[in-house]
Amino acid sequence: MKFYYYYSTDLIYAIPDHDNRHRYICQSCGEIHYQNPKIVAGCIPVWEDQVLLCKRAIEPRYGYWTLPAGFMELGETSVEAGMRETMEEANANVAVEDLFAVFSLPYVGQVYMMFRSRLLNLDFSPGIESQEVELYKEENIPWDELAFTTIRATLEHYFEDRRKGEFSLHTGDVVKKENGYDFIPTLIKE
Amino acid sequence: MKFYYYYSTDLIYAIPDHDNRHRYICQSCGEIHYQNPKIVAGCIPVWEDQVLLCKRAIEPRYGYWTLPAGFMELGETSVEAGMRETMEEANANVAVEDLFAVFSLPYVGQVYMMFRSRLLNLDFSPGIESQEVELYKEENIPWDELAFTTIRATLEHYFEDRRKGEFSLHTGDVVKKENGYDFIPTLIKE
Repeated sequence: MKFYYYYSTDLIYAIPDHDNRHRYICQSCGEIHYQNPKIVAGCIPVWEDQVLLCKRAIEPRYGYWTLPAGFMELGETSVEAGMRETMEEANANVAVEDLFAVFSLPYVGQVYMMFRSRLLNLDFSPGIESQEVELYKEENIPWDELAFTTIRATLEHYFEDRRKGEFSLHTGDVVKKENGYDFIPTLIKE
Repeated sequence: MKFYYYYSTDLIYAIPDHDNRHRYICQSCGEIHYQNPKIVAGCIPVWEDQVLLCKRAIEPRYGYWTLPAGFMELGETSVEAGMRETMEEANANVAVEDLFAVFSLPYVGQVYMMFRSRLLNLDFSPGIESQEVELYKEENIPWDELAFTTIRATLEHYFEDRRKGEFSLHTGDVVKKENGYDFIPTLIKE
């Protein structure tokens, strides 16, 4: 919710006909400006026993490490979005292998979709949103300098599955707590 | 893309600084109005060997059969969105068991997330967006009267997995072709 809407000339915040929620409605043209969660699509780019991480050159979390990921755009598929973000942030070419993680972040209106992927070569370099791009073995992952709870949860699940020798889909939610964020796996099995 | 934006007083369609795409930008306040794909979350409500379908009472595809699904809202998780839509369209209570299908529809800017779920009781009835709500065995599914390609693909995968005795995640894209739509499973395995 962005309060600037309230100061716009024609927009009101009200429940449209045949709806049960408040929406931003233009009194001039009648258009309803729906606001819905956005998809953040990204990759886990893997090379042998290493994973490619990017050190952020932008806020939020400037200077912290992340997997390449960003907002999915109109006109692309979620796989294409994950590959595009990997190219933009790390100039890295990947082949997507499987959807690995789907996490909801209700407090910020986002759904993360992370794809397990194979790095096709070592010709990667920082994109405009990254300071550095580097391959990390599990034991060297900068766990205390990761940018987001979603990235930590994705990497933890990835290395755990790799030890088991079997990858599966992981779903869950990130929730806000007093002094940070918690990852809660979805309890969806009987 | 909605052309009404062009006629608004202050909105222009241009590439913002540090971006590589055209966006709607308010020249008055500087706000960038991003438009991104929306998530459609829904359920496959299962009772014994039957699946609950809803006959649509709204456009598009008025009178055709669908699984309960609709746009995810801000502030909820994808599981909550699927359960809410199932309640709104079929007044049905479900327990979600697993994420079953994730389909991209790039031509319309949507990503479907369908959850396999267990109907908790038989107290269901049409919601305001449904004419009828009915349980169908596989052999009675109205295949020629299904509302959307996503729904057909979800049901086909569901019954196929059930015959195999093992459910897994299905990912793919729906693409527009000359006289309709095609479902294309994501080729993501080596």
